[in-house]
Amino acid sequence: MDIQSFKEVAKKYKVIFLDSYGVLRNYQGILPGVRDMIKFLDDEGIAYYVLTNDASRSPIQLAEAFASRGIPEITVEKIISSGMIAREYLENKVNSGTVVYLGTERSAHYIESVGLNTLSISEVDLANMDDFTAMVLLDDEGFDWNYDLTKAVNILRKKSLPVIVANSDETYPLSKDHVSIAVGGIADLLEPLSDKIFIRFGKPDSQIFHFAYEYAVTDLQMSISKRDILMVGDTLKTDIIGGNKFGIDTCLVLSGNIQAKNAEVLISATGIIPNYICQSVST
Amino acid sequence: MDIQSFKEVAKKYKVIFLDSYGVLRNYQGILPGVRDMIKFLDDEGIAYYVLTNDASRSPIQLAEAFASRGIPEITVEKIISSGMIAREYLENKVNSGTVVYLGTERSAHYIESVGLNTLSISEVDLANMDDFTAMVLLDDEGFDWNYDLTKAVNILRKKSLPVIVANSDETYPLSKDHVSIAVGGIADLLEPLSDKIFIRFGKPDSQIFHFAYEYAVTDLQMSISKRDILMVGDTLKTDIIGGNKFGIDTCLVLSGNIQAKNAEVLISATGIIPNYICQSVST
Amino acid sequence: MDIQSFKEVAKKYKVIFLDSYGVLRNYQGILPGVRDMIKFLDDEGIAYYVLTNDASRSPIQLAEAFASRGIPEITVEKIISSGMIAREYLENKVNSGTVVYLGTERSAHYIESVGLNTLSISEVDLANMDDFTAMVLLDDEGFDWNYDLTKAVNILRKKSLPVIVANSDETYPLSKDHVSIAVGGIADLLEPLSDKIFIRFGKPDSQIFHFAYEYAVTDLQMSISKRDILMVGDTLKTDIIGGNKFGIDTCLVLSGNIQAKNAEVLISATGIIPNYICQSVST
Amino acid sequence: MDIQSFKEVAKKYKVIFLDSYGVLRNYQGILPGVRDMIKFLDDEGIAYYVLTNDASRSPIQLAEAFASRGIPEITVEKIISSGMIAREYLENKVNSGTVVYLGTERSAHYIESVGLNTLSISEVDLANMDDFTAMVLLDDEGFDWNYDLTKAVNILRKKSLPVIVANSDETYPLSKDHVSIAVGGIADLLEPLSDKIFIRFGKPDSQIFHFAYEYAVTDLQMSISKRDILMVGDTLKTDIIGGNKFGIDTCLVLSGNIQAKNAEVLISATGIIPNYICQSVST
Repeated sequence: MDIQSFKEVAKKYKVIFLDSYGVLRNYQGILPGVRDMIKFLDDEGIAYYVLTNDASRSPIQLAEAFASRGIPEITVEKIISSGMIAREYLENKVNSGTVVYLGTERSAHYIESVGLNTLSISEVDLANMDDFTAMVLLDDEGFDWNYDLTKAVNILRKKSLPVIVANSDETYPLSKDHVSIAVGGIADLLEPLSDKIFIRFGKPDSQIFHFAYEYAVTDLQMSISKRDILMVGDTLKTDIIGGNKFGIDTCLVLSGNIQAKNAEVLISATGIIPNYICQSVST
Repeated sequence: MDIQSFKEVAKKYKVIFLDSYGVLRNYQGILPGVRDMIKFLDDEGIAYYVLTNDASRSPIQLAEAFASRGIPEITVEKIISSGMIAREYLENKVNSGTVVYLGTERSAHYIESVGLNTLSISEVDLANMDDFTAMVLLDDEGFDWNYDLTKAVNILRKKSLPVIVANSDETYPLSKDHVSIAVGGIADLLEPLSDKIFIRFGKPDSQIFHFAYEYAVTDLQMSISKRDILMVGDTLKTDIIGGNKFGIDTCLVLSGNIQAKNAEVLISATGIIPNYICQSVST
Repeated sequence: MDIQSFKEVAKKYKVIFLDSYGVLRNYQGILPGVRDMIKFLDDEGIAYYVLTNDASRSPIQLAEAFASRGIPEITVEKIISSGMIAREYLENKVNSGTVVYLGTERSAHYIESVGLNTLSISEVDLANMDDFTAMVLLDDEGFDWNYDLTKAVNILRKKSLPVIVANSDETYPLSKDHVSIAVGGIADLLEPLSDKIFIRFGKPDSQIFHFAYEYAVTDLQMSISKRDILMVGDTLKTDIIGGNKFGIDTCLVLSGNIQAKNAEVLISATGIIPNYICQSVST
Repeated sequence: MDIQSFKEVAKKYKVIFLDSYGVLRNYQGILPGVRDMIKFLDDEGIAYYVLTNDASRSPIQLAEAFASRGIPEITVEKIISSGMIAREYLENKVNSGTVVYLGTERSAHYIESVGLNTLSISEVDLANMDDFTAMVLLDDEGFDWNYDLTKAVNILRKKSLPVIVANSDETYPLSKDHVSIAVGGIADLLEPLSDKIFIRFGKPDSQIFHFAYEYAVTDLQMSISKRDILMVGDTLKTDIIGGNKFGIDTCLVLSGNIQAKNAEVLISATGIIPNYICQSVST
């Protein structure tokens, strides 16, 4: 297994897609050397975008979090979240009525910005659902799991609705050793109980990569081929297989989910093969 | 589809296994005619046992519920629950240490009766788990889903434990139109997130049928062949396929999960074929 | 359920994506009225493309089949197959070595056109696999299932390779009442046995829709928004949910998989809701 | 991880259940020291039975294979196969009509011994299936996979039948490095394509353990508790979890599927914990 310098790898590309958690930050904050790497990319004229499975906050809020932690270079224009893909779906396909959601009010505000009414599942009256046009799973916080998950199942048993999972991750890390169940895990619980087929957005699904690709072409006002783009991530089953499937080169960094000693075994065991392996983005 | 009289069917057998919910009772209480049917079985000298996927209460509490609703004939000796199978497992395989559980204190008391310490997952200190010897999923009530489900995942990521699902049902009915997520549904959420293989007890698994069979032989002090037993239930995917697989005859009643108009389609669609179909046990 | 005239629906759009089997043709040949509908679209200036899950033949061969059956208007430029998406993947991600495949020689010729060596799995020497860079599942014909499926499992157990499923359909219709196992069904068998994560192309995955969208923009040399496009198909779980997820309007036709009497139940049961329902494309 | 002497472990029990492949034999023949171990058990008065997931041969044929390889002590009375459980099911539940099967003629002869007609799926006329009462999957050999697997799907789409999987193993070893797809793997392919729910026999399902337990009680004419029995196997996901769930002690041997260096990791990763670990049964 050949470990390479990230900066040497990055210089071969015009555009870099960066995963956030495990690549730029972790539970303790921004990873060492990330700001220097961002400056390096800016100096070299290499464009970059953050691709993150997150629907709990708007891109503005995500950018504010980077700024407040010392990386103001990652502005809202640099951020592409799975919540944006879910929002685009609602804009294109659900242009009226009330969208019921699991998540915080903050996560719902962002959905409202396409002109839809939203209603928390906790406030749904099961006898009065005529106006509902979709259900969206946004965040694992902001509701009572004991009551509202069962309520979500009953809504879907009574009313045929498209169900949008705005972040397909099953867990997210809380600390070095602990994880929390994410909204994608909740979706895996609700889907078989409701007998509906859910629509999942976020890596590894290719739609977020297409969105990012088209966004970059527009943003940079230049022609970009898939060969010009590198996806950088710490997770084989989201970042790397997603990038591979979309047809772009991929780089696994060992600063998050996967430790150096396990990388080769995991790559061989899954058949998910990155083009490069780097210790971190600061190398 | 030929609908038969339950009493005529029952007379062909020496022992009847009766599912509880949808057969003897529903959300409104005991179904009409059940006590008469029980008297009929007693008069005819046909033995009967209630086989129920329930680990939230002890057999004593289940019998008290029948007595308080007007059927004192269904005594504790007539009741076989999936919680009893889980308890037998703990007795045979886990004879020391602390068993951590999801469920109410009431459900845990029953587990304690084999001489094990129990600890609610809500009270677990993740830094102090040396003494743990098993995890048991007992009931969907008695804990905070927001915190304790994630805690269960983290316990299993740190400590290798056998996980016992004492009731594999995914949902249970609350009223005519509403269901609640049962502890088997919670198990389906936790199992992939913890990467462990869980042990599930309760219909359709054959262990509860074997337990009931051996229990009946001992209780009745007579020789019984599988051909002498009839399993009666309202659910194809638990009662009927479980009875079929165990090798006994099966009778679907239409007083619960399945309506008469859908029975033939569902039987054909699943390939789960009961020997008899009756409107209810009171016919 | 409101059944509409397809031509009235089509007039609202600039571009139509048409599924092939069950929409344009079936086991008996081209469906009645299809050529008239194609002429109607041409007369109205509505662009159309055929989106088909097929990797057994090249687009040229697919176009020849339409021409030989009386619809020369569906030229190779109108055809987008899942095999094209698989071919694009190989071009972008696998630029050297030997690609091993399940399928006919005919299906492999098309893969070779990007400059890769191909080798049928039946001809693989398990002691000599250094040069292999990918495995592609192309077609359910052209190999011996008794030997070559087991051989595919053994190749993947010995060598870490990306596995591309060029058509994710599990079955395809042979006649009114009979189906055949398709290469997507074979993939479902091989994936758990080899412990690898396969990459699947074809509807409902969004990559074929993106490919078609970008193809249409280039081909028509005009600006197209997702709101200008209609996906027409006979299958909820591929055509309709795929189109919905991509963010375009969808039209279910009742000339294939789904009969009129079942449409409402199936839509309600799955939560996959088309924008329109039409008897067939000739209405 | 504490590696113990098998003979020291065995002396604690009255009855030993032995897995066959990986414990008594492998692709090269009988493992070294097995006959001595068998004599040791006989000398010590410890009863033993072979529990094997095999439906391709009758117990008589399995015993002949042991005898011809130098272990005549393993007579037909010592052998309990998953095929025997399937046969008991057919005897109890399917007492007339024709049973269609996938497998060799040899495997079907054994089914015929309960008085049922059998018909290979290859010989089924899809227009003439009135007499069919069950489908049994017996062996991965004896039929043409290209034609007969698709034919099995079409039979099940046209006719509602119980489907019995007489061996739930997904693969079996052909040599040190190679596996073959077993009939349980074929069942995993056919089940979702036919939309039926199959009945699977063989470890880890508890029915074979119950059968063996009752068989031993009758055979030995003595009272046996579950605490008197040890299950010995080389596979966590069949032998060990199956024995654990049935409530008997379990012993993992490292002479088959699992190598010593991986045992601890695999036990921890799955939560399937044997009571003992031994290098082989000859220690």
